[in-house]
Amino acid sequence: MILHDYLPSGNGYKIRLLLSLLGQSYQLKSYDIVKGESRTAEFLALNPNGKIPVLEFDDGRCLAESNAVLFYLAQGTPFWPQDVWQQAQVIKWMSFEQYSHEPNIASPRFWLTHAGVTAERQAQLADKQQQGYAALAVMEQHLSQHDYFVANTLTIADIALYAYTHVAEEGGFDLQKFPAVLAWLERVAQVNNYVSINDDSARVS
Amino acid sequence: MILHDYLPSGNGYKIRLLLSLLGQSYQLKSYDIVKGESRTAEFLALNPNGKIPVLEFDDGRCLAESNAVLFYLAQGTPFWPQDVWQQAQVIKWMSFEQYSHEPNIASPRFWLTHAGVTAERQAQLADKQQQGYAALAVMEQHLSQHDYFVANTLTIADIALYAYTHVAEEGGFDLQKFPAVLAWLERVAQVNNYVSINDDSARVS
Repeated sequence: MILHDYLPSGNGYKIRLLLSLLGQSYQLKSYDIVKGESRTAEFLALNPNGKIPVLEFDDGRCLAESNAVLFYLAQGTPFWPQDVWQQAQVIKWMSFEQYSHEPNIASPRFWLTHAGVTAERQAQLADKQQQGYAALAVMEQHLSQHDYFVANTLTIADIALYAYTHVAEEGGFDLQKFPAVLAWLERVAQVNNYVSINDDSARVS
Repeated sequence: MILHDYLPSGNGYKIRLLLSLLGQSYQLKSYDIVKGESRTAEFLALNPNGKIPVLEFDDGRCLAESNAVLFYLAQGTPFWPQDVWQQAQVIKWMSFEQYSHEPNIASPRFWLTHAGVTAERQAQLADKQQQGYAALAVMEQHLSQHDYFVANTLTIADIALYAYTHVAEEGGFDLQKFPAVLAWLERVAQVNNYVSINDDSARVS
């Protein structure tokens, strides 16, 4: 498998983390998305939406959208529950991640650490801070009563939400206000075969 | 079942459309989200994230996030494919809808038709127009080669994307540039038991 990715990306990291937990090796092909390398004709042939990550299988099939890749890789593993109601909860939390969490928590980090804060982005930062904190509060409420998001065990819902939450402070968010979130981050980081966002040693080139 | 909803919402309409296609009746409980009715303590007990739609089952269980509700209701029906690779494509397109499509196509419609265009929103409109047209172009490319998004048949991927695409012109988008999208919209609207976004006659109160 080839993971077409950008190493600082939390969306790519979701897949790198799950592949590591599953003990699966892969090749990493890096793109500098700030320089537009995910908008070339070659890349658009992999994903017409022009976004990393894309997982390319040995038979040439490609799958884009990080949470769809998590869904596919997790089939038949403990990271995707067998019960349909619990599966729906996983989809619910992954939808929450894509809509309420990632745009507010990941974008400020990307702007502050990689892409730069333009005037237009500066104008959006306060709103994103407010909505990002609201998303963290929803997580805090749930995690104050549960060790994990679904089925009392680590699923791809946790992996999807972990990716950008654990680096939220790079986007200006103070996680000290969220003790249950901090305890959950620690719980995830203790899992067997855990790999950090900047560690690409698990792959085989 | 009780659908907690706001009738102009495309996210709520996804569920109303699928329930109609499935011939399932439900009660509708309306909230005026512009007036903050989805942020009351009573509503937050249904969905701590404070967003409609929420589907409440007869045993009191609640499910939020429109695409998670589609996933749950479609199990065992033709609207959720049996093949795992095709299922992953459905999740991919529903992720695309939540991240690349809905925020750019639904928000301008909501601002222009219901919530009002503040100065801050005005500043974001050009960017959302550009990204919304990019999402429509991705759909056009796919639909120029396929009748539906996945598995050559109507699935919840189509329902998720139909909801806001078919009213995109209310958000200032010109769909005449996308003939394959227009043909697909027509195809969906011809399905048995189709219901329009403002028609709540399929429900039973």
